[in-house]
Parts: sequence; C-alpha cells; structure tokens
Amino acid sequence: MDTIIYLLPLIGFIILLFTSNRSSWIRRQDAGDAKMIEISHYISQGATSFLKSVYKSLIPFALVAATLLLGMSFLPNSHTHPLIALTFLLGAFTSAFSGWIGMKVATQANVRTTQAARRSLAQAFKISFTGGTVMGMGVTGLAILGISCLVCILFYLLAPQGLHTTDSHIILIILETITGFALGAESVALFARVAGGIYTKAADVGADLVGKIEAGIPEDDPRNPATIADNVGDNVGDVAGMGADLFGSYVATILAAMVLGNEVNTPNVSNKLLPIFFPLFMVVLGTLISILTSFIVKIEEGGNVQKAINRGIWVSTILIAVVAYFLAMALLPSSLTMRSQTFTNLDVFYAILVGLLVGVLVGNITQYFTAMGKGPVRFIIQQSSTGHATNIIAGLYVGMSSVALPMLLFAAGIYASFYFAGFYGVAIAAASMMATTMLQLSIDAFGPIADNAGGIAEMTGLPEEVRQRTDVLDTVGNTTAATGKGFAIASAALTSLALFAAYVKTANISSIDIYKAPVLAGLFVGGMIPFLFSAWVIKAVGKAAMAMVHEVRRQFREISGIMEGKAKPEYEKCVQISTRAALKGMLLPGILTIGSPLLIGFLYGPEVLGGLLAGITVSGVLMAMFQSNAGGAWDNAKKSFEKGVEIDGKTYYKGSEPHKASVTGDTVGDPLKDTSGPSMNILIKLASIIALVIAPVIALPNQASQEVIIETTIQDQLVIVPESSAAVQEQGSSSPATQPREIDKVD
Amino acid sequence: MDTIIYLLPLIGFIILLFTSNRSSWIRRQDAGDAKMIEISHYISQGATSFLKSVYKSLIPFALVAATLLLGMSFLPNSHTHPLIALTFLLGAFTSAFSGWIGMKVATQANVRTTQAARRSLAQAFKISFTGGTVMGMGVTGLAILGISCLVCILFYLLAPQGLHTTDSHIILIILETITGFALGAESVALFARVAGGIYTKAADVGADLVGKIEAGIPEDDPRNPATIADNVGDNVGDVAGMGADLFGSYVATILAAMVLGNEVNTPNVSNKLLPIFFPLFMVVLGTLISILTSFIVKIEEGGNVQKAINRGIWVSTILIAVVAYFLAMALLPSSLTMRSQTFTNLDVFYAILVGLLVGVLVGNITQYFTAMGKGPVRFIIQQSSTGHATNIIAGLYVGMSSVALPMLLFAAGIYASFYFAGFYGVAIAAASMMATTMLQLSIDAFGPIADNAGGIAEMTGLPEEVRQRTDVLDTVGNTTAATGKGFAIASAALTSLALFAAYVKTANISSIDIYKAPVLAGLFVGGMIPFLFSAWVIKAVGKAAMAMVHEVRRQFREISGIMEGKAKPEYEKCVQISTRAALKGMLLPGILTIGSPLLIGFLYGPEVLGGLLAGITVSGVLMAMFQSNAGGAWDNAKKSFEKGVEIDGKTYYKGSEPHKASVTGDTVGDPLKDTSGPSMNILIKLASIIALVIAPVIALPNQASQEVIIETTIQDQLVIVPESSAAVQEQGSSSPATQPREIDKVD
Repeated sequence: MDTIIYLLPLIGFIILLFTSNRSSWIRRQDAGDAKMIEISHYISQGATSFLKSVYKSLIPFALVAATLLLGMSFLPNSHTHPLIALTFLLGAFTSAFSGWIGMKVATQANVRTTQAARRSLAQAFKISFTGGTVMGMGVTGLAILGISCLVCILFYLLAPQGLHTTDSHIILIILETITGFALGAESVALFARVAGGIYTKAADVGADLVGKIEAGIPEDDPRNPATIADNVGDNVGDVAGMGADLFGSYVATILAAMVLGNEVNTPNVSNKLLPIFFPLFMVVLGTLISILTSFIVKIEEGGNVQKAINRGIWVSTILIAVVAYFLAMALLPSSLTMRSQTFTNLDVFYAILVGLLVGVLVGNITQYFTAMGKGPVRFIIQQSSTGHATNIIAGLYVGMSSVALPMLLFAAGIYASFYFAGFYGVAIAAASMMATTMLQLSIDAFGPIADNAGGIAEMTGLPEEVRQRTDVLDTVGNTTAATGKGFAIASAALTSLALFAAYVKTANISSIDIYKAPVLAGLFVGGMIPFLFSAWVIKAVGKAAMAMVHEVRRQFREISGIMEGKAKPEYEKCVQISTRAALKGMLLPGILTIGSPLLIGFLYGPEVLGGLLAGITVSGVLMAMFQSNAGGAWDNAKKSFEKGVEIDGKTYYKGSEPHKASVTGDTVGDPLKDTSGPSMNILIKLASIIALVIAPVIALPNQASQEVIIETTIQDQLVIVPESSAAVQEQGSSSPATQPREIDKVD
Repeated sequence: MDTIIYLLPLIGFIILLFTSNRSSWIRRQDAGDAKMIEISHYISQGATSFLKSVYKSLIPFALVAATLLLGMSFLPNSHTHPLIALTFLLGAFTSAFSGWIGMKVATQANVRTTQAARRSLAQAFKISFTGGTVMGMGVTGLAILGISCLVCILFYLLAPQGLHTTDSHIILIILETITGFALGAESVALFARVAGGIYTKAADVGADLVGKIEAGIPEDDPRNPATIADNVGDNVGDVAGMGADLFGSYVATILAAMVLGNEVNTPNVSNKLLPIFFPLFMVVLGTLISILTSFIVKIEEGGNVQKAINRGIWVSTILIAVVAYFLAMALLPSSLTMRSQTFTNLDVFYAILVGLLVGVLVGNITQYFTAMGKGPVRFIIQQSSTGHATNIIAGLYVGMSSVALPMLLFAAGIYASFYFAGFYGVAIAAASMMATTMLQLSIDAFGPIADNAGGIAEMTGLPEEVRQRTDVLDTVGNTTAATGKGFAIASAALTSLALFAAYVKTANISSIDIYKAPVLAGLFVGGMIPFLFSAWVIKAVGKAAMAMVHEVRRQFREISGIMEGKAKPEYEKCVQISTRAALKGMLLPGILTIGSPLLIGFLYGPEVLGGLLAGITVSGVLMAMFQSNAGGAWDNAKKSFEKGVEIDGKTYYKGSEPHKASVTGDTVGDPLKDTSGPSMNILIKLASIIALVIAPVIALPNQASQEVIIETTIQDQLVIVPESSAAVQEQGSSSPATQPREIDKVD
C-alpha cells in the first residue's frame, strides 16, 4: 500500500502537468480579430483584478485565522497540532489558486470559442469543453497533490512508525491537522463564492434593468457600460466560485471519510490504515476515470451536445462503480467493525453505489424542475399570462415543491449507506459522488465559457450564425448547470453529514440528543442561519444593482455619443462598483458562518454545537434547493418566450405582456440561483469543518460520561423510591421513570 | 384542590353564558337599512354555507379517525384507552363549534359596526371589539369547559381513588385519553385553516386581478361578482380559521404541560397532582384576567384605538404575571424534581415570565418587520421604484431576515425555561402565553370585522366619513393582526416543543439522538414537509384564483348591464368556486400532515419520529415567519402608497409605477401571509399531537434499553481488545473508542 500512497502526489502532479498542457493548447487556438481580442482583454482584465482584490482582502483574515489556530493548539487541553496553521494557509492558497486557474482558462477559452464558432459548432464545443476540463483537472489535481503530500509528510513527522503506525490517536491528530487544509479551502471558497455571486448578479441585474428595459438595447451590447462587468461576472461567479466550492467539497469529503475510516476496526491490526486510505484511493481512481471519460465528450458537426455530455456522465459513473467494486474487494478486509456494527467490504461497495445513485438522481430531479418544456417551467409560463404576481407565485411554488424528492433521497441515502456501513458508509457515499467531480466541474465550467463566447460575438458584431452556434452551447450549458447545481448541493449535503459524523467522533461525544433543551435551542439557531445568510446576500445584490443602475443611467446621460456607438462607455467604473459591493457584501455572511459555530461551540460545548450543525445543514440544504430551483425555473420560463410559447391557445413571444412578467421572475431568481442559493453549499460545509477543527479543544473529557451514566442511573432510582413506593410496583411497563438516562439533561 | 377542579367546568360554563350575553347584545344593535341588511345577509349566508360544507366533508374523516383510534386502543401492546375515540370526536366537534361561533358573531357584528360608524368611531370600535371578545371568550370558554369536564369524568371512570390517585401510570392514561380531545381540535383546525385560507385568498386575488386591475372598479364594489366571496373569505379564513387554530393551541398546550406535570416529583406523594393541575389553573385564571381586562379596551370619541389595545395587552400580561406568582407560591411545593433536576416553585414562576416575555417580544418584532413607516417596509417601498422584480426581492429579504431574532428568542426561551424547571418549565412557558389567548383572539378577530364593515359601507354606498371611520379601525386591525400572527407562531412553536417533550416521555424513549442515521434521516424528511405543504397550498390558491378570474371575466362579458349597476352579478357562482377549491385544496396538505408522522412512527419507531418532529418544527416555524412577515410587509408597503410615499425626493401615489410594483408584491404575499404561513402553526402542532397519540402504541418496551446499555458497553470493550491490545494503553485521553454508548446505533 505504501507504494500507492507515495504514488499519489505523483498522480496529482501528472494531472496538473496535463492540465497545463491542455491549457496551453487552448492558448494556441486562434483568438480572432483585434476587436475580439480587445473585448476579451477587458473581460480578462476585469476578472483578474477582481480576484486579486478579493484574495488581497483575504490575506489579513487568513493570517489572523492561522494565528488563532496556532494559539488554539497551545491551549492546555487541546490535542490540535500547531502545524494546522500551516495546512490552513496551504488550503487557503490552493483554493484561491483553483479559482484562479478556472478564471484564467475561462477568459482565454471564451474568445477562442467565439472564433471557432465562426467555422463550426463541433470546434466551438471542443474549445469551450476543453476549457471546462482544464478547470476540472486543475481543481482535482491540486486537491490530490495537496492532500496526499500532507498525508505523507505528516505521517513521517508525527507518527513514529510512519505509514505503518496503528495508533488511532496519532492518526486522528494527523487527520485533524489536515482538516486545516480543508478549513482553509472552504473559507476561501465561501468568500470567493459570495463575492463572485454578488459581483455577477449586481452587474447582470444592473445591466438588464437600464440597458434592456429602459434603453431598449440588446443584451451584451457594447454601448452598455455594465456589459463588461456582466461578462466578467460569469467568470468570477460561475467559474471561479464554483471551482473553489467544489475544491472544498472534494478535500473535505475525503478528509471526513478518512477520519471515520480511523474509527473502523479491522480483524488484523496491520490492516488498520486500509479503511482510512480507501476513500482517498477511490476518489483518485474516480478522478482518473473522469479525466479519461472526458475525451469521449465530443461531437461531430451537427451532433447533439447534450447527448455527448450525458454519455460522458453515465460512462464515468458506471466505470467508477465497476472500479470501486474491485478496489473495495482488493483493498478492504472482508470484515470490518465500527461502533459495534459489523460489515463487509461488499457493504462498503453498496454504500458507494448509494452515493453514486443519489448524486445522479438529485441531478436529474433538479434538471426536471428547471428544464424548458417540463411541467414546472410550463406551469410558470401559464401563470405568466395573468401578470407579474402570478408568475412569482408559480416560481415560489416550483422552488418549494422541488425540495421534496431530493430531501427524501438524501434521507434514503443516509439511511441506506448507514445501514450498509455505519457512518463510514455515509462518508464513503459522499466520497463516491466526489469521484465524478472532475467531469461535473468540466461540464459546469463549459456553460459560462459558451455564454461569454456569445457575449463576445454580440459585442463585436459577428454574423448571426456565430451567435446561433454559441446559443446552442449556452442552452445546453444552462441545462447542465442545473444538473451541476443539483450535484453540488447533493455533494455538499452528504459531505456535511460525513463531517458531522467525524465531528461527533473527534469531539468525544457519544450522542447529539435533541431532547436536551440546549441542543434543541442550538437546532433552532442553526435552522435560522441559512435564512439570515440568504437575506444578507440578497440585500447586498439588491443594493449593488441599484448603484449599478444609477451609474449606467449617469453614463447614458453624461457621455455624449455613447448611444450612437461613437464614445466608449467607462466600463471600469461599473467593474469598480461590482467589485466594491462584492468585497463589502461578503463580510457579514462570512462572519455569520465562521462566528456562529465558534461562539456556540466554546460557550455551550460540543453537543449544542452538534445541534447547531444539524439545524444549519437541514435548513441550508432546503434553502439551497428552494432558491436555486426557483431561480432556474424562472430563468428558463423567460427563455422559453424566445421561441414563442402557447398559453390558452394563443402564442406569445418576446415583448408580450406574459413575457414581461417572466422577465420579472427571472430578475427575482437571479440572486437566488447564482448568489445566495449556491452559497448555502459552502455555508453548511464550512460550519461543519469549523466544528471539526475546534472539536479537539471543546471535546468532552474522556471517561467522564461513562461515570455519569452509572451515577444518573442510580440517582434516578433513588428518586423514585420516595416518590411513591407503592406505585413503582404498579407502574407496569409504560413508565419511563425506571429507565436509565445517559448524560444528565442539565448542562 | 378538589373544589377548584370541580369549579372549573362551572367557570367554563359561566364564560360561555357571558359569551352568549355579549353575543345577544351585538344582535340587539341596529343593523342599518335594508340594503345593508341584504349585503350582510349575502356574506353571512356565504360563510355559513361554506363552513357547513367544510364540516360536512370532515364527518367521514372524523368517523374513520375515531374508528382507527378505537382500534388502536385494542392493539396488543397499546396502553391507549378506548375512550380516546370519544374524546377525539368531542374535540373535533368543539373546535368546529369554536370556528362557527366566531364566524357567526363576526357576520353579525360587521354590519352593525358599519351602522355604528355612521354616528361615531367609539361606538363602531365598541361593537367590532365586542364581536372579537365574543370569539375570544367563546373559544376559551369551550376549551375550559371541555378539558375540565374530561379531567373530572376520566378521573372518576379510570382512577380507583378519583382525584386522589397518585398512580403515575393511570394519570398518564387519563391524560393520553384527553390527548384525543386535542387531536380532534387540531385536526379540524388544520382543515378549517387551510380551507378558509384558500377560500379567502382565491376570492381576494381573483376579485383584485379582474375588478381592480382589468375593470378599474374600486375594491368591494358591488358590481364585482367576486366581492361577496372576498368578504365571506375574511370571516371564514381570518376569523373562523384563527379561532380553530388558537382553540387547538390552547387545549394542546394545557395538555402537554399536564403530561409533563405528571413527570414532576413532589416531596410529598399527596401533592403529586399539583404540578399536573397547575398549568390548567394558571391558564384559566389568566383567561379570567384577560376577560376582565377586555373591558378597559375602549376609547372616548377621537381617542387612539391602538393605544387602547396596547394598554389591554400590557395590563393583562402584567396582571397574569402577578397572579401567576401567587398561584405558584400557593399551589406548588417549594421543591420539585424532574429527571434528576430539582427546582422550586419560584423557578416555575420564572419559566412563566420567560413565556410571557417571549410572546410579547416575538409579537413586537413581527410588528416591526411588517409595520408601516418602519425600516423593512420603507426598504420595500424604496425598491419598488425600480420595478416589480426589485420589490419582490426586497420582500423576500425582509421575510428571510425577519426570522433571525424570533428564532434566537425561541432558542433563549427554550434554554431559559428549561434551565429553571426542565421540560416542565418549557411547557409552563408555553401555557403562560396561552393565558393571554382570550385577549389576543379578541384583538385578532376585531380586525376582519372592521374590514368587513368597511366593505359593507363601500358596497352600500354610504357617505365617505363612514368608510373613513372603519378605515381607522381597519388600519389598527392590520397592525394587531401582525402582532397576533407573531403571537400565534410563538405559541405554536412553544406548544410543539411542550408536546415534543410530552411525546418523548410517553414513547418511553430517553433521548432523540440525531447521531443515529435513521433519526437524522427523519430530521431531513421533517424539514422538507413544511416546504411541500406550503407549495401545495400556494398552488391551490393560484389555481382557484385563476378559475375566479375566468368566472368574473365571464360575468362581465355575459351579464349585460352589470357594469352600469342595473343587473346583479351572480355572487353565488364565485362563492361556489372558492368553496370547491378550498375543499379540494385542503386534502393533500391534510394527508401529508396526518400521514407522515403515522408512517414514520409505525415504520421506524419512536426515536426516528422524534427526529421527524424536530425537523417539521424547526422548518415549520421558519417558513411560518418567513411567509407571514414577507406577506405582511408587502401588504403595508402597498398600503403606504395611499397616503403617498417619498422615493429619492419624489412623492408617489396610487397609480404610479412604483405603486403598481407594490401591488405585485402584495398579491404575491397574499397566499403566503393568509394561507400557507398561518397553516404552518397547525402543521407543527398537529404532527406533534399525532405523535403523542400514537406514542403508547409505538413506545419502546420498558427495561429493554437499560439492558442494551450495559450490553453495548461490555460489547464495545470486548471489541477493543482484539483490535489492538497494545494501542489501548497508548490511546490516551482523546479516543472515544473506550467510551460507553447508549442504545446500539443500528436499528
């Protein structure tokens, strides 16, 4: 096994080399004429300077957090290793770098996709999808390199026998130290996602409200001062934000599964490390399979893009299942034990199947609720005929009802994977979903690239057929974006649960009992946080959009010749407004996310924090789906008008009253689906990781709870005697007064 | 104490006599001219026939449910008494009767308020508020009569020593049997609330969309065919629905507190019944205080209605606190014990203060988020200047952010009341809120009466000054409705928690551990239910409103002379549409609410059901506040335009573009604040009551869990030994492997 582990950093490195190779292939493609290069330069410059601002503003935060982590490791009863401060910084840097890679390649691929679309759809798809794969490979390559290097180094530094140690406690400390890596990654992901989301939607809503509605100029018109900010937004929000998000999921899931693997007992002590490393191996193998599968995602001229993508997803999912079977059989002992539950390596494989299935199904359900031509979107279109209000009500209905099936699937997934292999099974199910991350990310990132390519075609006044080709890609991109969002939510939900389980173990508590009032209070507070978080993010977008509206109106008024295309708009002013709003808007939600688990954990102890986490996770997953799906459905209801829709026998097109109502729905949905909704994923993961990181410090002292049980049991029985000594005999079988209780219910 | 208990039915009876006296006082007031009597007759007839249809359609359901309850009591391991079938039917009937009383008096008081408003505001307020008190007294009188009669009768039938029994088990059976009463009450409340809510909003939205927007005729114009249905809706939705809702809360809270009182141990066995009856006495005393206080709620001509109402609330709250102090001191022993927590009668009093405080604060916070002139509503007004979409986004922001403080207050309330007196304290806190129910209901019911009075003034073409007077009352009614909704949500939340605690005791489980995967899965499923419930209810309103729109359009088109006031519209057609939609729309949400706890409880056992309840409660409370407050804020943002609002230095009135945007928000908010939002209260209570009712059947067998603990502890230690006998010594203090676990994590 040693050899494989040492191979992992090499695999990560090779993936990154290959990423760089693909990236330079894209750069070698034709970037079109001078005007196209100029526009794409504006976008690339805006995106670069935005990410720089975000990252720069995060440096003080990262240093303070690292110092606090270092300080925490020196607390008297802490088992945290000081190296956690370093792994944290490394995670933060790598996550930032992941977002950067994605943004860079996206801003290079966009204009080259436009240029390719002048000749053929197949070539345009190839470039935009390759752009996506660079992002997918870059993110997963960095994650594999980072996590496997840390594993190797920390085992050598901290474990006396290196990779042969069987000391659970030392292994736990090593894994806890690596948790710093995940914490750094998710922290940066949170800020990048929220800031990117505010940026993109402020620009989008602002550009639309004045440009499209007031001035009557088309989308992506170069006369609109906010149009560059809008296109920059696609790259920093959808691409960089999603990249950092999934980088965090990828790392956190592997880690949670490894922590739980440390709790799995094998018949032979020398096999102790196998359940720990199994999730890492599985995800790496899955990623390699995804990379290979990405090569079959291509079309002949005139081919069906959606089918090519679906083929890729199915082939990789099935291949991963097959390979996982052999891996589980080869690597894991046939009998494993965890918390007095015994299971086989076949059971672990079943948990993998559960994870893959939940991922695919939730993705498809999300797609159903947001896809054009399907029931939910058709319902919104119908309700648009009676005005703005009924369109909104219909969208809220779709969003609220869309949570039902995925929540049942999550519940079934938790139940089933736990049934097969305990909480190790739940973590393994989450990890198996992450094995497909590389392909999911490629597909996710290709959409915004195609969208940008269309924008560049519009801004540079290329022939109609170019825009038509990019529109084909864009439409597919919207559908895959919906599936991708479902996947991201599902992975975040399962990752949080795996982290939750790892947290309970690390905090040394044996239960999270919501029949203790403080824990129940924690659940209530936790449930509230996603609502407040969403509210703040939505308000930040609203305020920034208003500022953008005023700026665009000012430029239209003050810059003479702008509407005739003679004078150039001051693009950078709009970029600045979005940037400032994003940097300001990410503060409060960030403090809420990071502060609340810290506050509750240190003030009320590990079990109440467990209640808080459960509240955040359930409510966060609900709000993620509600907001993303309502927004997605509104968006596609509006898009449906482009080809004309039939309502009560009449056909309506763009510009009709029902279409105007659908534009209102789309605008409402924008911040929900692209800012607050996707931020929920990181919120729930980050809260769980913070809990896991502080778990060793707030952990219950060992042994104590065992004594309490015995004491309470005796004490209870003593209480009963004076109560009614005659009644005790009569109470029969339904009185719980004679039951033992675990920990005393009073804090 | 015996004497007091026997006095209770008499007190209930006297309250009802007095209710009837006040009711006939209202009937003796002048009902105005023939035209007014005709219109009010239409409304009264519509409301009566609607409630009859709803109740009739519930008879088969009630009979089936009663039979199932009867059957359940004969199951082999059930401790349920067969009488539960009777108490269920009694509860269902009484709840229906509560709604009926409210509807009757409201439809009589409305026209008499109009007539009084022709002379003076003070007199109009007196009649409308007296109408409210009839509702308040009727509901609480029926509840006191019902519950105290059942207590007396069941003790005599089932306890060998009657009211002197000290046998916990028998007392539990008696209280469980009375739970049937609460179940019947809440079941009818659910259907009445949902049906009434769909009815009123379908009529309201339908009447507005065609009448106000398309035909340009004012609200409540008699030419609008849907206007009668709209006014009927106020009576069946806001009055009858709210009455049944709070009747259910009142009964359920008392019961939950009594069940927990049975778990409180007193130093002297002969005092055993005191903690059980204390909540009943406190609520009855509080109700009497509220009735007395209602007499000081009146104004001189030209006086301030809002101040009079606030005075009433504060005086009654303070008086209840004072009286509760003396009651606790006089009735309760100075030392009480529950689950090894010891507390004094003073601690119980502190829990009462916590409940009163949470009720008042949550009411005031709700008022802040929805009141005219306050920050949130002003924000929505500002955002209306850029169109429909930004108005909606602002409202969503207000709704989402409004949940934060109340959730923190609930958490603090749970924590504090539990700190003082365990879960008995939580139940007592809930009960202390219910002590003010009578006054809260009076204030709640007075609003719709005033609203109706204004409608009648408009429809009968009375002079402008009459409408102005009723508008003063209506405006106050809107503010108090917001506070009342906050109160209803707070009481529902605390009631559910009290029921939850009573359930855990009855189901014989000692914890609800969300670190068991099936329990966690239950939490996920529970969290989803309020979203699906809301979605279905919103869709039912939307569909019914569309049907109403088509019908109103048809009548305008086909009935010649309707617009000139020469031909009478077919009011009853619109009444029929609303009725049918309501009856159909209440089905699915009802099945979801009743079916899911049954399914989960019987399939997966009591602990998973506990997880489900926690999920429903947290998510339900969040959705209740989000929807009610967003809707309330949108409503008042729209109303603000009537007097003119200033945006960026310009003043806008009705008919302006920002006003149109605000109408969109108001229409979206209508079903949220008057249908799905308030239904959440009943959803969370009913789910908990169902759990409590089936608890004896699905209860864990006694003693078993005690054995499991010991077994698991030993087993765990056995597992550790072969695992790594050397490692055990080294593991130090952070390894939880040596910890005992309670119940086996595998189901």
